[in-house]
Amino acid sequence: MGFLPVVALVGRMVLLFALLLLVPLAFALLGDDDAKPAFVTAATATAVCGLLLSLVTRRFRRELQPRDGFLLVGMTWAVLPLFGALPLWLAVPGLSMTDAYFEATSAFTATGATALSGLDKLPLSVNVWRCFMTWVGGLGIIVLAVAILPMLGVGGSQLFKAEVAGPMKDQKLTPRIADTARVIWVAYLAMSVACFFAFAAAGMGWADAFMHMCSTVSLGGFSSYDASFGHFDSPLIEAIAMVFMVLAGVNLLLYFAVWRARSLRGLWRNTEVRAFYMVLLAGTGVVAAYLLWRGEYNEPLVALRHSAFHVVSVATTGGFATQDYGQWPLFAPLLMLLLGCFATCAGSTGGGIKMVRMLLMLKQARRELVRIVHPNVVNPVVLNGQAISDRVMQSVIAYMMIYGAILVGFTMLLVFTGLDVVTAFTAVIACANNIGPGLGEVGPANNFGGLSDFQTWVCTFAMMLGRLELLSVLVLFTPAFWRR
Amino acid sequence: MGFLPVVALVGRMVLLFALLLLVPLAFALLGDDDAKPAFVTAATATAVCGLLLSLVTRRFRRELQPRDGFLLVGMTWAVLPLFGALPLWLAVPGLSMTDAYFEATSAFTATGATALSGLDKLPLSVNVWRCFMTWVGGLGIIVLAVAILPMLGVGGSQLFKAEVAGPMKDQKLTPRIADTARVIWVAYLAMSVACFFAFAAAGMGWADAFMHMCSTVSLGGFSSYDASFGHFDSPLIEAIAMVFMVLAGVNLLLYFAVWRARSLRGLWRNTEVRAFYMVLLAGTGVVAAYLLWRGEYNEPLVALRHSAFHVVSVATTGGFATQDYGQWPLFAPLLMLLLGCFATCAGSTGGGIKMVRMLLMLKQARRELVRIVHPNVVNPVVLNGQAISDRVMQSVIAYMMIYGAILVGFTMLLVFTGLDVVTAFTAVIACANNIGPGLGEVGPANNFGGLSDFQTWVCTFAMMLGRLELLSVLVLFTPAFWRR
Ligand SMILES: [K+]
Ligand SMILES: [K+]
Repeated sequence: MGFLPVVALVGRMVLLFALLLLVPLAFALLGDDDAKPAFVTAATATAVCGLLLSLVTRRFRRELQPRDGFLLVGMTWAVLPLFGALPLWLAVPGLSMTDAYFEATSAFTATGATALSGLDKLPLSVNVWRCFMTWVGGLGIIVLAVAILPMLGVGGSQLFKAEVAGPMKDQKLTPRIADTARVIWVAYLAMSVACFFAFAAAGMGWADAFMHMCSTVSLGGFSSYDASFGHFDSPLIEAIAMVFMVLAGVNLLLYFAVWRARSLRGLWRNTEVRAFYMVLLAGTGVVAAYLLWRGEYNEPLVALRHSAFHVVSVATTGGFATQDYGQWPLFAPLLMLLLGCFATCAGSTGGGIKMVRMLLMLKQARRELVRIVHPNVVNPVVLNGQAISDRVMQSVIAYMMIYGAILVGFTMLLVFTGLDVVTAFTAVIACANNIGPGLGEVGPANNFGGLSDFQTWVCTFAMMLGRLELLSVLVLFTPAFWRR
Repeated sequence: MGFLPVVALVGRMVLLFALLLLVPLAFALLGDDDAKPAFVTAATATAVCGLLLSLVTRRFRRELQPRDGFLLVGMTWAVLPLFGALPLWLAVPGLSMTDAYFEATSAFTATGATALSGLDKLPLSVNVWRCFMTWVGGLGIIVLAVAILPMLGVGGSQLFKAEVAGPMKDQKLTPRIADTARVIWVAYLAMSVACFFAFAAAGMGWADAFMHMCSTVSLGGFSSYDASFGHFDSPLIEAIAMVFMVLAGVNLLLYFAVWRARSLRGLWRNTEVRAFYMVLLAGTGVVAAYLLWRGEYNEPLVALRHSAFHVVSVATTGGFATQDYGQWPLFAPLLMLLLGCFATCAGSTGGGIKMVRMLLMLKQARRELVRIVHPNVVNPVVLNGQAISDRVMQSVIAYMMIYGAILVGFTMLLVFTGLDVVTAFTAVIACANNIGPGLGEVGPANNFGGLSDFQTWVCTFAMMLGRLELLSVLVLFTPAFWRR
């Protein structure tokens, strides 16, 4: 059985996952809130399951091969949300298992679409768990993007690895992943600590600072308040959130390079990062001007404050809100969602197709227009001074094709089940790009709790597909993968 | 001045175009209708303009080079609608020049989106002119697709030429175009004559048969009635229209091959044609089942009749209607519009990205999934037993990228001007794919007359871009093209 070694590793991860449950459990015990029994039960059950899985599959342990990576990734992101959902299901009265799994997947993929309302009245420990899961998920996402997927060669992700570790000498997964993961871990932790203290210094309580730090640096977007950051109504806190969302939207390995070189120049010299900054700036300008023009706000500074926060929030795929931007004239939120589809950099905690793929596609289109005029010219696609091989371009292109097909297909599926077009389309956009809130019935002032079970599963699957770069999930459904 | 030889040719085409105006003029004279002076004036003005243009540019005539082709194509589809619009503007009271130009472009690109209402009350000759223009446009489109664009190498259109003429021996445009055009002309005329007599035999009046033949074989979609084919309420007429729409959705050169081989096998053996048929069948089945399920119709045969007609009509980019399918539950018309984006075959009068490009993209995606599992396997994309070169694949991919960007960009532009999302998106889909009616405010029971001037121009440009395979227009806007 070729997949048992993978199950063995997943078993050990479930065991580790039980330890993570101690964090909300500690909050529950200290605060003596109603979710105490839920977390005790969940932690125990998770530990027992992990132990059993590990023991049963013990003798199948072996060094993993690249191909095992696909199974590992798919299983991890399917199984861990199950254990993440358990305490939610136990603690929140009336929450269906479907919605609990949706919520946990949303956290784990750092999507931040919620099926819950009345967040303010939930036990503190439940909100801590929701936010803490996005933080853990965020870390997992970066490791996935810069250490695992490049080795699996998915959709051009070969381009995502920064030159931290040496050239790939052997096909063993573990040592290389460990190397890169250490660097990421340090950068992520440093950013988290800074964000936490910044929020606390700006006047948040410690628990709020912890939770909002978690979902800011992970670009998860969960909050402990229905009003999200709107609860604080503080320009300072919004500014801090914006800064850390922008920081989190860049390949974390680049910060390592910046730190080693003691110079910020590497950041600005990077075409992808520069494009990311420019898109955020231009988006803010356009939305602010549009909202003023349409009379949504009358004071330029107010328009600028809200535009900047929401453009950054949605385009980085953070997904926080301080205003019900679903009520803005439709062009503004649509534009923001559109930016969320591609603005973030590869190797960040952000979702979407990533700026690097967008740049490559634009360059490919320009290349073709030149070629029509000069059929014999040789003009490879160049990014950051490096010619991109046709092989990588083809991966990127297949990725884009499948991305488009998934957006259209999933939207049609939701329309088929009776959702209106705006809700269906933006729900798919918001989930597949791991943004969080959509528009219409799943807009920032509403939530995904109103969807039917089937619709919820469609959205859950969209979040996973988007987060795992599509192809690494889809490959599991091809006969070629299972034919050894 | 490099473009003057092109202007010289356009001048001669304008002169020829004046002759076409004699057709509606004949109807106006025979029927003695109100549009007589309009057509006399328009024909005279067109002839004078054509003559002047030809005379002024006379000494610049020379053999055209491939690069001139882009200018020729762009100018033809921009200038001729101007002269086509003239009699409409003169004959229809209250019609703005913007709407008249939209209407003529819509006819010339065989889109069939109309800015007019009250068609039933227009002078017969005006309706004859609208429909006749789609017929002329349809012929032009096929010549463009199979004789001109392949030589220009636009977006993979190299694949569109059937093996009628010999291999390309020199770079001269005219002789090769003439060869292929002759074959097309014969096939198109034969189909038109058959369609005309079929309609007449089924009970249409001669004038109606002529007009509806024109917009059926060209997949234009104009009608002389606001109710379109619904006016006749005849299953037989609908069946005839369906047959000829399906016939017109296939590469006309294939019929020539079929006729030479005295066997239909070549049609069914062609992957693209087979996929086209399958999509129409499957689409009809799904829509019929869906409409029955949602209780839109209660009798299976009625559901089948209306589903078949509208799936064929929209998916082939014909664009006729017998029912207000805009009132159907949204999944059905959305699915139909989706099919209209790609179902028709290259070299037909149909619009959209063409089935061949869709197949290539699907194959590219599958190829990539196989490659992820077997990184060293060599698996070129194969269509109709022929390996497709990377060069052609890249053209197709650039085409798809630009297609997606145009759909998104134009939709955002229309939303920006205040249209609702469904109207904006479906208007762009319906125009850029030359389908005709969209949904919402531009649905089958409404028309494009309600749009603002700016919105109308956006739609007009979308029709042209779509019809001219995007890249051949966009290349005119690149500096590389003008740098000689
Ligand atoms: K998010
Ligand atoms: K049409």
